[in-house]
Amino acid sequence: MIDKLIEKIQKTKAPIVVGLDPMLKFIPDSILKQAFLEKGETLEGAAEAVWQFNKAIIDRIADLIPAVKPQIAMYEQFGVPGLCAFQKTVTYCKEKGLIVIGDIKRGDIGSTSSAYATAHLGKVKVGSNFCTVFDEDFVTVNPYLGSDGVQPFIDVCKEEKKGIFILVKTSNPSSGEFQDQLVKSGVTAGVVGEQTGKIAFADKTLYETVGEKVAEWSTQCMGAYGYSSIGAVVGATYPEQGKILRKVMPHSFILVPGYGAQGGTGKDLVHFFDKNRLGAIVNSSRGIIAAYQSEKYAQFGPEHFADASRQAVIDMIADIDQALECME
Amino acid sequence: MIDKLIEKIQKTKAPIVVGLDPMLKFIPDSILKQAFLEKGETLEGAAEAVWQFNKAIIDRIADLIPAVKPQIAMYEQFGVPGLCAFQKTVTYCKEKGLIVIGDIKRGDIGSTSSAYATAHLGKVKVGSNFCTVFDEDFVTVNPYLGSDGVQPFIDVCKEEKKGIFILVKTSNPSSGEFQDQLVKSGVTAGVVGEQTGKIAFADKTLYETVGEKVAEWSTQCMGAYGYSSIGAVVGATYPEQGKILRKVMPHSFILVPGYGAQGGTGKDLVHFFDKNRLGAIVNSSRGIIAAYQSEKYAQFGPEHFADASRQAVIDMIADIDQALECME
Repeated sequence: MIDKLIEKIQKTKAPIVVGLDPMLKFIPDSILKQAFLEKGETLEGAAEAVWQFNKAIIDRIADLIPAVKPQIAMYEQFGVPGLCAFQKTVTYCKEKGLIVIGDIKRGDIGSTSSAYATAHLGKVKVGSNFCTVFDEDFVTVNPYLGSDGVQPFIDVCKEEKKGIFILVKTSNPSSGEFQDQLVKSGVTAGVVGEQTGKIAFADKTLYETVGEKVAEWSTQCMGAYGYSSIGAVVGATYPEQGKILRKVMPHSFILVPGYGAQGGTGKDLVHFFDKNRLGAIVNSSRGIIAAYQSEKYAQFGPEHFADASRQAVIDMIADIDQALECME
Repeated sequence: MIDKLIEKIQKTKAPIVVGLDPMLKFIPDSILKQAFLEKGETLEGAAEAVWQFNKAIIDRIADLIPAVKPQIAMYEQFGVPGLCAFQKTVTYCKEKGLIVIGDIKRGDIGSTSSAYATAHLGKVKVGSNFCTVFDEDFVTVNPYLGSDGVQPFIDVCKEEKKGIFILVKTSNPSSGEFQDQLVKSGVTAGVVGEQTGKIAFADKTLYETVGEKVAEWSTQCMGAYGYSSIGAVVGATYPEQGKILRKVMPHSFILVPGYGAQGGTGKDLVHFFDKNRLGAIVNSSRGIIAAYQSEKYAQFGPEHFADASRQAVIDMIADIDQALECME
């Protein structure tokens, strides 16, 4: 699956992914009104508005980008109708030729992770049938439970030629609380490197430790271009950490959230990429889908929200392109 | 919400929760056959079988226990129909007076965690309506993203009088891979405690660090019995770690998975409890719901699977009771 993503990135010349994280406040009144008229101010009405909003944006930007990343929480908040809208969005994007990264951040003990992997990447056996369920191309995975929580996802990736991005260093302000903890490594607890007078362990953070594990896992699903279908999530808001992690995980594609609304800029991104402009894919969510609400794209107005999104995609591609050119 | 849970535990004299994690292989053929006859060997058929299986077990055990813990992954694997069965199960258990702990292990950046918290514990605003969604009483939360990923759940707990259990030390074999990492604390990186010849930091693990944070968060939602609605998950398979964490988080109720099928026994549990037999609630999933498939309860046969579950609940309560008596 990573090869397919790389080929799409090369074709579109756009190492970006658009986050389809529709909050109701992003959706123009005209769409809300129509959806509520049809289905009421209910979960069904909200889900219908989300779907119509998504569809209009996808139709207007699908030719420019390789991939989308729907954030399942934004659909789950509208319950079963919301998850129907998630499924419709995934299916529609795939029909449009887009690669779909399900931002689900699941992770549990073995048999439970297997069920999640089946739900989102695989097929579930019912009687003598194998049924596809949500059927994204990639999903994001939380590593806190360790190898036996992650391996079931990798197993399904191998079987179904799918991929995952494992959370390593997330983009949020308090991501450092646990992820930046310095961990002891290479020494038995309590032993001091007395010869040098220094502590006999490297200052290694938890996110580096997780990154090393990702590097190990990534060897199980190598593609044709030197990258693995087992990738990582590293926030654009932490460029220095991105620089370190690019080296720690040489075969892992990095999904980079935090660009735009969260504060990451084009120049923060250069270290996430390799010299061939590969190795990373940058996400923007509200910066694209709610572009018409920002001052920069206000001239489009709510009635042309999808055109504002298109322009925001074009500008984001240019911004990253320029940053990568400066790097060369 | 923690007060309600404590009162239910005291009333039933059963500090246990039954994990409703229905895999199709646990469901007797007669139920599967009927469901497939009605809805086909489809996601709908699987979901119907899950629901009928759950209902029969709930009806037979609801009077014995304070709470159930449906594992959402086992429903999510059957897509939208599966999530309908999850919702029906939650609603039905609440109607039966059971407290519902949604085992969802969600956790994300702020606005996304908010959406999850709304979906599972709160109400979502649609137009001028506030709609309840899945409406569990408690959910499990993954802390890897730090405070700003957890706080939105706490905020909803405060508003809606709900609760959460935060993953601290999970029950699975590789939980130590990251959770047991020794982290540096109390010293600036690279400084050695030269006076004593020892390293000037405590050998503190990541799970203790997370536990300390849980203790801090727990003060926000204190109940009447000295416990907070902000609890923790610590696996029965790690009794020594449970002993440490009981002290680190004096106000947090501990949800203890890993009893039974995963290898935890009654005597492993004593350190999770306080001297009043409170402070912990022990989960068993397949040990109860698939009891009829084990040798011990084979005499019930598949036709009396729910009676086997009832007996397994009675035996589990006795096992824990005996272990707690030995402690006194």
